[in-house]
Amino acid sequence: MTTANLISEIKKKQSFLCVGLDVDLEKVPEFLLKEEDPIFSFNKAIIDATHQYAVAYKPNTAFYEAYGLKGWRSLEKTINYLNENYPEIFTIADAKRGDIGNTSSRYAKAFFEDLGFDSVTVAPYMGKDSVEPFLAFENKHTIMLALTSNEGAFDFQTKLVGEKELYKQVLKTSKKWRNSENLMYVVGATKAEFFADIRKIIPHSFLLVPGVGAQGGSLKEVCKYGLTENVGLLVNSSRGIIYASKDTDFAKAAAQEAKNMQLDMKAILDGVR
Amino acid sequence: MTTANLISEIKKKQSFLCVGLDVDLEKVPEFLLKEEDPIFSFNKAIIDATHQYAVAYKPNTAFYEAYGLKGWRSLEKTINYLNENYPEIFTIADAKRGDIGNTSSRYAKAFFEDLGFDSVTVAPYMGKDSVEPFLAFENKHTIMLALTSNEGAFDFQTKLVGEKELYKQVLKTSKKWRNSENLMYVVGATKAEFFADIRKIIPHSFLLVPGVGAQGGSLKEVCKYGLTENVGLLVNSSRGIIYASKDTDFAKAAAQEAKNMQLDMKAILDGVR
Repeated sequence: MTTANLISEIKKKQSFLCVGLDVDLEKVPEFLLKEEDPIFSFNKAIIDATHQYAVAYKPNTAFYEAYGLKGWRSLEKTINYLNENYPEIFTIADAKRGDIGNTSSRYAKAFFEDLGFDSVTVAPYMGKDSVEPFLAFENKHTIMLALTSNEGAFDFQTKLVGEKELYKQVLKTSKKWRNSENLMYVVGATKAEFFADIRKIIPHSFLLVPGVGAQGGSLKEVCKYGLTENVGLLVNSSRGIIYASKDTDFAKAAAQEAKNMQLDMKAILDGVR
Repeated sequence: MTTANLISEIKKKQSFLCVGLDVDLEKVPEFLLKEEDPIFSFNKAIIDATHQYAVAYKPNTAFYEAYGLKGWRSLEKTINYLNENYPEIFTIADAKRGDIGNTSSRYAKAFFEDLGFDSVTVAPYMGKDSVEPFLAFENKHTIMLALTSNEGAFDFQTKLVGEKELYKQVLKTSKKWRNSENLMYVVGATKAEFFADIRKIIPHSFLLVPGVGAQGGSLKEVCKYGLTENVGLLVNSSRGIIYASKDTDFAKAAAQEAKNMQLDMKAILDGVR
Protein backbone atom coordinates (compact mmCIF):
# COMPACT_ATOMS: atom_id res chain seq x y z
CA MET A 1 0.00 0.00 0.00
CA THR A 2 1.25 3.51 -0.78
CA THR A 3 1.36 6.21 1.86
CA ALA A 4 -1.12 8.19 -0.28
CA ASN A 5 -3.62 5.30 -0.06
CA LEU A 6 -3.23 5.21 3.71
CA ILE A 7 -3.78 8.97 4.01
CA SER A 8 -6.84 8.84 1.78
CA GLU A 9 -8.33 6.03 3.90
CA ILE A 10 -7.66 8.03 7.08
CA LYS A 11 -9.42 11.08 5.63
CA LYS A 12 -12.34 9.03 4.36
CA LYS A 13 -12.93 7.27 7.68
CA GLN A 14 -11.95 10.27 9.81
CA SER A 15 -9.96 7.81 11.84
CA PHE A 16 -6.31 7.00 12.45
CA LEU A 17 -7.09 4.05 14.69
CA CYS A 18 -4.99 0.90 14.61
CA VAL A 19 -6.42 -2.14 16.38
CA GLY A 20 -3.83 -4.38 18.03
CA LEU A 21 -4.67 -8.05 17.55
CA ASP A 22 -2.77 -9.39 20.57
CA VAL A 23 -4.82 -12.49 21.11
CA ASP A 24 -4.44 -14.38 24.37
CA LEU A 25 -6.57 -17.51 24.67
CA GLU A 26 -6.97 -16.88 28.39
CA LYS A 27 -8.72 -13.61 27.62
CA VAL A 28 -11.02 -14.46 24.71
CA PRO A 29 -14.68 -15.39 25.40
CA GLU A 30 -14.80 -18.98 26.58
CA PHE A 31 -17.39 -20.16 24.08
CA LEU A 32 -14.86 -19.52 21.28
CA LEU A 33 -12.49 -22.15 22.62
CA LYS A 34 -14.66 -24.87 21.10
CA GLU A 35 -13.95 -23.56 17.60
CA GLU A 36 -11.36 -25.24 15.42
CA ASP A 37 -9.18 -22.10 15.36
CA PRO A 38 -10.33 -19.85 18.23
CA ILE A 39 -7.68 -17.21 17.54
CA PHE A 40 -8.74 -16.75 13.94
CA SER A 41 -12.46 -16.85 14.85
CA PHE A 42 -11.84 -14.15 17.43
CA ASN A 43 -9.84 -11.99 14.99
CA LYS A 44 -12.38 -12.40 12.20
CA ALA A 45 -15.24 -11.29 14.46
CA ILE A 46 -13.23 -8.33 15.79
CA ILE A 47 -12.19 -7.24 12.29
CA ASP A 48 -15.70 -7.55 10.84
CA ALA A 49 -17.13 -5.51 13.71
CA THR A 50 -14.50 -2.76 13.88
CA HIS A 51 -13.21 -2.26 10.32
CA GLN A 52 -15.37 0.78 9.59
CA TYR A 53 -13.73 2.62 12.50
CA ALA A 54 -10.12 1.51 11.96
CA VAL A 55 -7.55 2.08 9.23
CA ALA A 56 -4.98 -0.46 10.42
CA TYR A 57 -4.65 -3.78 12.23
CA LYS A 58 -1.54 -4.86 14.07
CA PRO A 59 -1.05 -8.45 15.20
CA ASN A 60 1.92 -8.71 17.56
CA THR A 61 3.76 -11.83 16.40
CA ALA A 62 4.73 -12.85 19.95
CA PHE A 63 1.13 -13.76 20.72
CA TYR A 64 1.03 -16.09 17.70
CA GLU A 65 4.50 -17.62 18.14
CA ALA A 66 3.46 -18.48 21.69
CA TYR A 67 1.05 -21.03 20.21
CA GLY A 68 3.66 -22.60 17.92
CA LEU A 69 2.61 -23.91 14.49
CA LYS A 70 -1.07 -23.45 15.32
CA GLY A 71 -0.40 -19.82 16.14
CA TRP A 72 1.45 -19.20 12.87
CA ARG A 73 -1.46 -20.72 10.99
CA SER A 74 -3.84 -18.34 12.79
CA LEU A 75 -1.61 -15.40 11.88
CA GLU A 76 -1.53 -16.49 8.25
CA LYS A 77 -5.30 -16.85 8.14
CA THR A 78 -5.76 -13.44 9.78
CA ILE A 79 -3.56 -11.55 7.32
CA ASN A 80 -5.13 -13.42 4.38
CA TYR A 81 -8.59 -12.55 5.65
CA LEU A 82 -7.65 -8.87 5.91
CA ASN A 83 -6.04 -8.75 2.47
CA GLU A 84 -8.95 -10.54 0.79
CA ASN A 85 -11.83 -8.76 2.47
CA TYR A 86 -10.45 -5.36 3.42
CA PRO A 87 -7.60 -4.55 1.02
CA GLU A 88 -7.95 -0.86 1.92
CA ILE A 89 -6.77 -1.63 5.48
CA PHE A 90 -3.10 -1.05 6.38
CA THR A 91 -1.57 -4.14 8.01
CA ILE A 92 1.31 -4.16 10.48
CA ALA A 93 3.31 -7.20 11.59
CA ASP A 94 4.49 -6.11 15.02
CA ALA A 95 7.57 -8.30 15.03
CA LYS A 96 10.40 -5.96 16.14
CA ARG A 97 12.90 -7.85 13.99
CA GLY A 98 16.45 -6.90 13.07
CA ASP A 99 19.56 -8.89 12.14
CA ILE A 100 22.65 -8.60 9.94
CA GLY A 101 21.94 -7.73 6.30
CA ASN A 102 21.39 -11.09 4.58
CA THR A 103 19.39 -12.35 7.55
CA SER A 104 17.17 -9.25 7.74
CA SER A 105 16.38 -9.89 4.05
CA ARG A 106 14.87 -13.20 5.12
CA TYR A 107 12.60 -11.55 7.65
CA ALA A 108 11.58 -8.89 5.14
CA LYS A 109 10.67 -11.50 2.55
CA ALA A 110 8.72 -13.53 5.11
CA PHE A 111 6.56 -10.62 6.28
CA PHE A 112 6.21 -8.57 3.08
CA GLU A 113 6.06 -11.22 0.37
CA ASP A 114 5.01 -14.52 1.91
CA LEU A 115 2.59 -13.21 4.51
CA GLY A 116 1.70 -10.07 2.54
CA PHE A 117 1.85 -7.48 5.33
CA ASP A 118 2.05 -3.81 4.34
CA SER A 119 4.54 -3.08 7.10
CA VAL A 120 6.68 -4.61 9.81
CA THR A 121 8.20 -3.18 12.99
CA VAL A 122 11.99 -3.37 13.39
CA ALA A 123 14.56 -2.65 16.11
CA PRO A 124 17.36 -0.13 15.43
CA TYR A 125 20.20 -1.44 17.63
CA MET A 126 22.10 -3.20 14.80
CA GLY A 127 22.02 -0.11 12.56
CA LYS A 128 21.77 0.60 8.87
CA ASP A 129 22.43 -2.78 7.26
CA SER A 130 19.91 -4.44 9.59
CA VAL A 131 17.10 -2.13 8.42
CA GLU A 132 17.86 -1.33 4.77
CA PRO A 133 16.84 -4.81 3.52
CA PHE A 134 13.31 -4.01 4.76
CA LEU A 135 13.36 -0.56 3.12
CA ALA A 136 14.16 -2.07 -0.28
CA PHE A 137 10.57 -3.30 -0.78
CA GLU A 138 8.42 -0.95 -2.86
CA ASN A 139 5.14 0.22 -1.34
CA LYS A 140 6.01 -1.58 1.88
CA HIS A 141 6.73 0.26 5.13
CA THR A 142 9.27 -0.29 7.86
CA ILE A 143 8.28 0.95 11.28
CA MET A 144 11.35 1.43 13.44
CA LEU A 145 11.36 1.58 17.23
CA ALA A 146 12.32 5.09 18.32
CA LEU A 147 10.84 5.88 21.75
CA THR A 148 8.80 3.02 23.16
CA SER A 149 5.92 3.18 25.62
CA ASN A 150 7.47 1.03 28.37
CA GLU A 151 9.51 1.86 31.49
CA GLY A 152 12.65 0.37 29.97
CA ALA A 153 12.61 3.13 27.32
CA PHE A 154 14.54 5.21 29.86
CA ASP A 155 17.36 2.65 30.15
CA PHE A 156 18.98 3.51 26.83
CA GLN A 157 16.64 5.39 24.45
CA THR A 158 16.63 8.64 26.40
CA LYS A 159 20.33 8.57 27.32
CA LEU A 160 22.35 11.43 25.88
CA VAL A 161 24.55 10.56 22.92
CA GLY A 162 26.61 13.71 22.51
CA GLU A 163 24.01 16.46 22.75
CA LYS A 164 21.01 14.41 21.67
CA GLU A 165 19.13 11.53 23.24
CA LEU A 166 19.70 8.14 21.60
CA TYR A 167 16.17 8.00 20.14
CA LYS A 168 16.78 11.33 18.42
CA GLN A 169 20.05 10.03 17.00
CA VAL A 170 18.13 7.02 15.73
CA LEU A 171 15.58 9.29 14.01
CA LYS A 172 18.25 11.58 12.56
CA THR A 173 20.62 8.84 11.38
CA SER A 174 17.88 6.75 9.78
CA LYS A 175 16.87 9.64 7.51
CA LYS A 176 20.12 9.10 5.60
CA TRP A 177 19.49 5.42 4.90
CA ARG A 178 18.62 4.20 1.42
CA ASN A 179 14.85 4.35 0.74
CA SER A 180 14.29 6.09 4.08
CA GLU A 181 11.02 7.45 2.67
CA ASN A 182 9.64 3.98 3.52
CA LEU A 183 10.31 4.54 7.23
CA MET A 184 7.73 5.14 9.92
CA TYR A 185 8.54 5.18 13.64
CA VAL A 186 7.18 3.80 16.91
CA VAL A 187 6.70 6.52 19.53
CA GLY A 188 4.81 5.67 22.71
CA ALA A 189 1.81 7.74 23.79
CA THR A 190 3.09 7.62 27.34
CA LYS A 191 5.78 10.07 26.26
CA ALA A 192 3.49 12.72 24.70
CA GLU A 193 5.70 15.59 25.83
CA PHE A 194 8.45 14.29 23.52
CA PHE A 195 6.36 14.59 20.34
CA ALA A 196 7.14 18.27 19.69
CA ASP A 197 10.88 17.58 19.62
CA ILE A 198 10.36 14.49 17.48
CA ARG A 199 8.40 16.46 14.90
CA LYS A 200 11.36 18.84 14.56
CA ILE A 201 13.46 15.92 13.30
CA ILE A 202 10.83 14.04 11.27
CA PRO A 203 8.11 16.58 10.46
CA HIS A 204 6.18 14.41 8.00
CA SER A 205 6.80 10.74 8.86
CA PHE A 206 4.02 8.55 10.11
CA LEU A 207 4.26 7.55 13.77
CA LEU A 208 2.79 4.37 15.15
CA VAL A 209 1.68 5.24 18.66
CA PRO A 210 1.07 2.48 21.23
CA GLY A 211 0.21 3.17 24.84
CA VAL A 212 -3.10 5.05 24.59
CA GLY A 213 -5.68 3.60 26.96
CA ALA A 214 -4.54 0.63 29.08
CA GLN A 215 -0.97 2.00 29.31
CA GLY A 216 -2.14 5.51 30.26
CA GLY A 217 -1.30 7.72 27.27
CA SER A 218 -3.63 10.55 26.23
CA LEU A 219 -4.93 10.81 22.66
CA LYS A 220 -5.37 14.57 22.95
CA GLU A 221 -1.81 15.16 24.13
CA VAL A 222 -0.37 12.94 21.39
CA CYS A 223 -2.33 14.80 18.73
CA LYS A 224 -1.49 18.23 20.10
CA TYR A 225 2.18 17.74 19.22
CA GLY A 226 2.13 14.82 16.81
CA LEU A 227 -0.47 15.61 14.13
CA THR A 228 0.72 16.70 10.69
CA GLU A 229 -1.28 18.07 7.77
CA ASN A 230 -1.61 14.49 6.49
CA VAL A 231 -2.42 13.32 10.03
CA GLY A 232 0.87 11.38 10.28
CA LEU A 233 -0.32 9.24 13.18
CA LEU A 234 -1.58 5.72 13.66
CA VAL A 235 -2.78 5.37 17.23
CA ASN A 236 -2.95 1.80 18.44
CA SER A 237 -5.30 0.31 20.96
CA SER A 238 -5.25 -3.40 21.76
CA ARG A 239 -6.71 -4.58 25.07
CA GLY A 240 -9.10 -1.62 25.44
CA ILE A 241 -10.89 -2.67 22.25
CA ILE A 242 -10.50 -6.41 21.75
CA TYR A 243 -11.22 -7.35 25.37
CA ALA A 244 -14.06 -4.87 25.93
CA SER A 245 -16.28 -7.82 26.80
CA LYS A 246 -15.68 -11.49 27.57
CA ASP A 247 -19.22 -12.50 26.64
CA THR A 248 -21.00 -13.42 23.41
CA ASP A 249 -21.30 -9.67 22.72
CA PHE A 250 -17.50 -9.25 22.56
CA ALA A 251 -17.47 -8.10 18.92
CA LYS A 252 -20.26 -5.60 19.49
CA ALA A 253 -18.48 -4.26 22.58
CA ALA A 254 -15.24 -3.98 20.62
CA ALA A 255 -17.07 -2.08 17.87
CA GLN A 256 -18.45 0.35 20.46
CA GLU A 257 -14.97 1.01 21.88
CA ALA A 258 -13.51 1.44 18.40
CA LYS A 259 -16.35 3.80 17.48
CA ASN A 260 -15.71 5.88 20.61
CA MET A 261 -12.08 6.25 19.65
CA GLN A 262 -12.99 7.08 16.06
CA LEU A 263 -15.36 9.80 17.28
CA ASP A 264 -12.64 11.25 19.51
CA MET A 265 -10.31 11.23 16.51
CA LYS A 266 -12.89 12.86 14.24
CA ALA A 267 -13.42 15.61 16.82
CA ILE A 268 -9.69 16.26 16.94
CA LEU A 269 -9.40 16.29 13.13
CA ASP A 270 -12.41 18.65 12.92
CA GLY A 271 -10.80 20.88 15.52
CA VAL A 272 -7.61 21.44 13.54
CA ARG A 273 -9.42 22.29 10.32
CA MET B 1 21.06 -26.51 31.04
CA THR B 2 23.18 -25.01 33.81
CA THR B 3 26.28 -22.97 33.06
CA ALA B 4 28.28 -25.61 34.93
CA ASN B 5 27.03 -28.29 32.50
CA LEU B 6 28.04 -26.14 29.56
CA ILE B 7 31.52 -25.56 30.98
CA SER B 8 32.00 -29.24 31.68
CA GLU B 9 31.02 -30.12 28.11
CA ILE B 10 33.46 -27.53 26.76
CA LYS B 11 36.27 -28.98 28.83
CA LYS B 12 35.41 -32.54 27.86
CA LYS B 13 35.29 -31.82 24.14
CA GLN B 14 38.09 -29.24 24.22
CA SER B 15 35.83 -27.16 22.04
CA PHE B 16 33.78 -24.00 22.36
CA LEU B 17 32.39 -24.26 18.86
CA CYS B 18 28.81 -23.29 18.08
CA VAL B 19 27.47 -24.35 14.68
CA GLY B 20 25.02 -21.90 13.11
CA LEU B 21 22.15 -23.73 11.42
CA ASP B 22 21.19 -20.97 8.96
CA VAL B 23 19.66 -23.15 6.30
CA ASP B 24 19.00 -21.67 2.89
CA LEU B 25 17.40 -24.10 0.40
CA GLU B 26 19.34 -22.45 -2.41
CA LYS B 27 22.59 -23.50 -0.77
CA VAL B 28 21.91 -27.05 0.39
CA PRO B 29 22.94 -30.00 -1.84
CA GLU B 30 20.38 -30.38 -4.59
CA PHE B 31 19.69 -34.06 -4.01
CA LEU B 32 18.20 -33.17 -0.60
CA LEU B 33 15.40 -31.15 -2.19
CA LYS B 34 13.57 -34.37 -3.02
CA GLU B 35 13.20 -35.18 0.68
CA GLU B 36 9.95 -34.47 2.49
CA ASP B 37 11.62 -31.94 4.80
CA PRO B 38 14.94 -30.95 3.20
CA ILE B 39 15.78 -28.44 5.93
CA PHE B 40 15.43 -31.00 8.69
CA SER B 41 17.25 -33.67 6.67
CA PHE B 42 20.10 -31.24 6.14
CA ASN B 43 20.25 -30.25 9.83
CA LYS B 44 20.09 -33.84 11.03
CA ALA B 45 23.00 -34.85 8.80
CA ILE B 46 25.04 -31.82 9.85
CA ILE B 47 24.35 -32.41 13.55
CA ASP B 48 25.15 -36.13 13.39
CA ALA B 49 28.42 -35.42 11.59
CA THR B 50 29.63 -32.48 13.71
CA HIS B 51 28.31 -33.05 17.24
CA GLN B 52 31.56 -34.47 18.60
CA TYR B 53 33.36 -31.23 17.70
CA ALA B 54 30.69 -28.73 18.79
CA VAL B 55 29.14 -27.79 22.13
CA ALA B 56 26.28 -25.67 20.78
CA TYR B 57 23.95 -25.31 17.80
CA LYS B 58 22.30 -22.05 16.83
CA PRO B 59 19.47 -21.95 14.31
CA ASN B 60 18.74 -18.36 13.27
CA THR B 61 14.94 -18.14 13.29
CA ALA B 62 14.85 -15.81 10.24
CA PHE B 63 15.90 -18.68 7.99
CA TYR B 64 12.99 -20.81 9.24
CA GLU B 65 10.34 -18.06 9.28
CA ALA B 66 11.25 -17.37 5.66
CA TYR B 67 9.67 -20.75 4.81
CA GLY B 68 6.46 -20.07 6.73
CA LEU B 69 4.68 -22.93 8.49
CA LYS B 70 6.95 -25.48 6.84
CA GLY B 71 9.96 -23.64 8.19
CA TRP B 72 8.59 -23.57 11.73
CA ARG B 73 7.97 -27.29 11.54
CA SER B 74 11.59 -27.83 10.46
CA LEU B 75 12.78 -25.70 13.39
CA GLU B 76 10.63 -27.69 15.82
CA LYS B 77 11.93 -30.99 14.46
CA THR B 78 15.53 -29.74 14.66
CA ILE B 79 15.34 -28.66 18.31
CA ASN B 80 13.49 -31.86 19.23
CA TYR B 81 16.14 -33.94 17.48
CA LEU B 82 18.89 -32.13 19.39
CA ASN B 83 17.15 -32.45 22.76
CA GLU B 84 16.37 -36.14 22.26
CA ASN B 85 19.67 -37.30 20.82
CA TYR B 86 22.23 -34.86 22.19
CA PRO B 87 20.88 -33.47 25.46
CA GLU B 88 24.43 -32.43 26.44
CA ILE B 89 24.44 -29.87 23.59
CA PHE B 90 23.63 -26.22 24.37
CA THR B 91 20.92 -24.88 22.05
CA ILE B 92 20.46 -21.26 21.00
CA ALA B 93 17.42 -19.77 19.29
CA ASP B 94 18.96 -16.83 17.45
CA ALA B 95 15.78 -14.78 17.38
CA LYS B 96 16.89 -11.32 18.57
CA ARG B 97 13.52 -10.73 20.21
CA GLY B 98 12.45 -7.96 22.59
CA ASP B 99 9.13 -6.29 23.39
CA ILE B 100 7.30 -4.72 26.32
CA GLY B 101 7.11 -6.89 29.45
CA ASN B 102 3.99 -9.01 29.00
CA THR B 103 4.80 -9.52 25.32
CA SER B 104 8.40 -10.54 25.97
CA SER B 105 7.00 -13.15 28.37
CA ARG B 106 5.23 -14.69 25.38
CA TYR B 107 8.44 -14.96 23.40
CA ALA B 108 10.27 -16.40 26.39
CA LYS B 109 7.61 -19.06 26.89
CA ALA B 110 7.61 -19.93 23.18
CA PHE B 111 11.37 -20.46 22.95
CA PHE B 112 12.18 -21.84 26.41
CA GLU B 113 9.12 -23.93 27.26
CA ASP B 114 7.34 -24.84 24.05
CA LEU B 115 10.35 -25.28 21.78
CA GLY B 116 12.71 -26.23 24.62
CA PHE B 117 15.74 -24.13 23.70
CA ASP B 118 18.41 -23.57 26.37
CA SER B 119 18.84 -19.96 25.33
CA VAL B 120 17.54 -17.19 23.10
CA THR B 121 19.14 -14.02 21.75
CA VAL B 122 17.46 -10.69 22.60
CA ALA B 123 17.86 -7.03 21.59
CA PRO B 124 18.52 -4.43 24.32
CA TYR B 125 16.91 -1.29 22.86
CA MET B 126 13.67 -1.49 24.89
CA GLY B 127 15.55 -1.91 28.17
CA LYS B 128 15.03 -3.78 31.41
CA ASP B 129 11.38 -4.82 31.27
CA SER B 130 11.87 -6.20 27.75
CA VAL B 131 14.63 -8.56 28.89
CA GLU B 132 13.77 -9.52 32.49
CA PRO B 133 10.87 -11.82 31.43
CA PHE B 134 13.48 -13.99 29.67
CA LEU B 135 15.80 -13.92 32.69
CA ALA B 136 13.06 -15.27 34.93
CA PHE B 137 13.44 -18.83 33.58
CA GLU B 138 15.64 -21.08 35.68
CA ASN B 139 18.55 -22.81 33.95
CA LYS B 140 17.73 -20.93 30.75
CA HIS B 141 20.04 -18.30 29.28
CA THR B 142 19.39 -14.95 27.66
CA ILE B 143 22.00 -13.80 25.17
CA MET B 144 21.77 -10.05 24.69
CA LEU B 145 23.16 -8.16 21.71
CA ALA B 146 26.03 -5.97 22.87
CA LEU B 147 28.48 -5.33 20.03
CA THR B 148 27.43 -7.05 16.81
CA SER B 149 29.63 -8.19 13.93
CA ASN B 150 28.07 -6.07 11.18
CA GLU B 151 28.92 -2.65 9.75
CA GLY B 152 25.80 -1.11 11.29
CA ALA B 153 27.24 -1.77 14.75
CA PHE B 154 28.99 1.58 14.37
CA ASP B 155 25.72 3.48 13.82
CA PHE B 156 24.63 3.40 17.46
CA GLN B 157 26.43 0.72 19.51
CA THR B 158 29.80 2.47 19.54
CA LYS B 159 28.44 6.00 19.99
CA LEU B 160 29.47 7.66 23.24
CA VAL B 161 26.80 7.84 25.92
CA GLY B 162 28.42 10.11 28.48
CA GLU B 163 31.94 8.72 28.80
CA LYS B 164 31.16 5.19 27.65
CA GLU B 165 30.09 3.69 24.33
CA LEU B 166 26.46 2.55 24.18
CA TYR B 167 27.39 -1.16 24.11
CA LYS B 168 29.35 -0.69 27.34
CA GLN B 169 26.35 1.04 28.94
CA VAL B 170 24.26 -1.93 27.84
CA LEU B 171 26.70 -4.35 29.49
CA LYS B 172 26.97 -2.27 32.67
CA THR B 173 23.26 -1.53 33.06
CA SER B 174 22.18 -5.10 32.42
CA LYS B 175 24.28 -6.37 35.32
CA LYS B 176 21.78 -4.71 37.67
CA TRP B 177 18.73 -6.48 36.22
CA ARG B 178 16.95 -9.20 38.15
CA ASN B 179 18.48 -12.66 37.52
CA SER B 180 21.29 -11.08 35.49
CA GLU B 181 23.37 -14.17 36.21
CA ASN B 182 21.36 -15.74 33.38
CA LEU B 183 22.77 -13.24 30.87
CA MET B 184 25.28 -13.94 28.14
CA TYR B 185 26.21 -11.42 25.43
CA VAL B 186 26.73 -11.29 21.67
CA VAL B 187 30.07 -9.75 20.74
CA GLY B 188 31.23 -9.95 17.13
CA ALA B 189 34.61 -11.45 16.29
CA THR B 190 35.16 -8.65 13.78
CA LYS B 191 35.68 -6.34 16.75
CA ALA B 192 38.36 -8.41 18.55
CA GLU B 193 40.18 -5.30 19.78
CA PHE B 194 37.14 -4.45 21.93
CA PHE B 195 37.24 -7.68 23.94
CA ALA B 196 39.76 -6.47 26.51
CA ASP B 197 37.54 -3.53 27.48
CA ILE B 198 34.48 -5.77 27.51
CA ARG B 199 36.12 -8.21 29.91
CA LYS B 200 36.71 -5.32 32.34
CA ILE B 201 32.93 -4.89 32.62
CA ILE B 202 31.84 -8.52 32.45
CA PRO B 203 34.88 -10.59 33.46
CA HIS B 204 33.08 -13.94 33.73
CA SER B 205 30.02 -13.88 31.44
CA PHE B 206 29.81 -16.14 28.44
CA LEU B 207 30.09 -14.37 25.09
CA LEU B 208 28.52 -15.70 21.92
CA VAL B 209 30.89 -14.68 19.14
CA PRO B 210 29.71 -14.60 15.53
CA GLY B 211 31.83 -13.36 12.67
CA VAL B 212 34.76 -15.80 12.68
CA GLY B 213 35.43 -17.15 9.17
CA ALA B 214 33.16 -15.84 6.42
CA GLN B 215 32.85 -12.43 8.10
CA GLY B 216 36.61 -12.12 8.63
CA GLY B 217 37.09 -12.35 12.43
CA SER B 218 40.12 -14.13 13.88
CA LEU B 219 39.75 -16.91 16.46
CA LYS B 220 43.17 -16.23 17.92
CA GLU B 221 42.50 -12.54 18.43
CA VAL B 222 39.14 -13.20 20.04
CA CYS B 223 40.67 -15.71 22.45
CA LYS B 224 43.64 -13.50 23.29
CA TYR B 225 41.32 -10.99 24.98
CA GLY B 226 38.09 -12.91 25.49
CA LEU B 227 38.99 -16.21 27.17
CA THR B 228 38.28 -16.66 30.88
CA GLU B 229 39.32 -19.44 33.24
CA ASN B 230 36.05 -21.21 32.40
CA VAL B 231 36.58 -20.42 28.72
CA GLY B 232 33.62 -18.01 28.65
CA LEU B 233 33.29 -18.08 24.86
CA LEU B 234 31.05 -19.76 22.33
CA VAL B 235 32.47 -19.07 18.88
CA ASN B 236 29.95 -19.49 16.10
CA SER B 237 30.55 -20.57 12.55
CA SER B 238 27.69 -21.03 10.12
CA ARG B 239 28.43 -20.91 6.39
CA GLY B 240 32.07 -22.01 6.75
CA ILE B 241 30.92 -25.33 8.21
CA ILE B 242 27.45 -26.14 6.90
CA TYR B 243 28.16 -25.19 3.29
CA ALA B 244 31.67 -26.68 3.12
CA SER B 245 30.46 -28.83 0.21
CA LYS B 246 27.36 -28.81 -2.00
CA ASP B 247 27.74 -32.49 -2.92
CA THR B 248 26.69 -35.78 -1.37
CA ASP B 249 29.73 -35.47 0.91
CA PHE B 250 28.37 -32.27 2.53
CA ALA B 251 28.12 -33.76 6.03
CA LYS B 252 31.61 -35.21 5.87
CA ALA B 253 33.00 -31.90 4.62
CA ALA B 254 31.17 -30.07 7.44
CA ALA B 255 32.65 -32.51 9.96
CA GLN B 256 36.14 -31.81 8.62
CA GLU B 257 35.66 -28.04 8.95
CA ALA B 258 34.22 -28.42 12.45
CA LYS B 259 37.12 -30.68 13.41
CA ASN B 260 39.63 -28.12 12.12
CA MET B 261 38.04 -25.46 14.30
CA GLN B 262 37.94 -27.78 17.29
CA LEU B 263 41.65 -28.53 16.84
CA ASP B 264 42.42 -24.81 16.67
CA MET B 265 40.39 -24.34 19.85
CA LYS B 266 42.12 -27.21 21.62
CA ALA B 267 45.52 -25.74 20.71
CA ILE B 268 44.48 -22.40 22.19
CA LEU B 269 43.12 -24.02 25.36
CA ASP B 270 46.34 -26.08 25.69
CA GLY B 271 48.35 -22.91 25.22
CA VAL B 272 46.79 -21.08 28.16
CA ARG B 273 47.20 -23.96 30.54
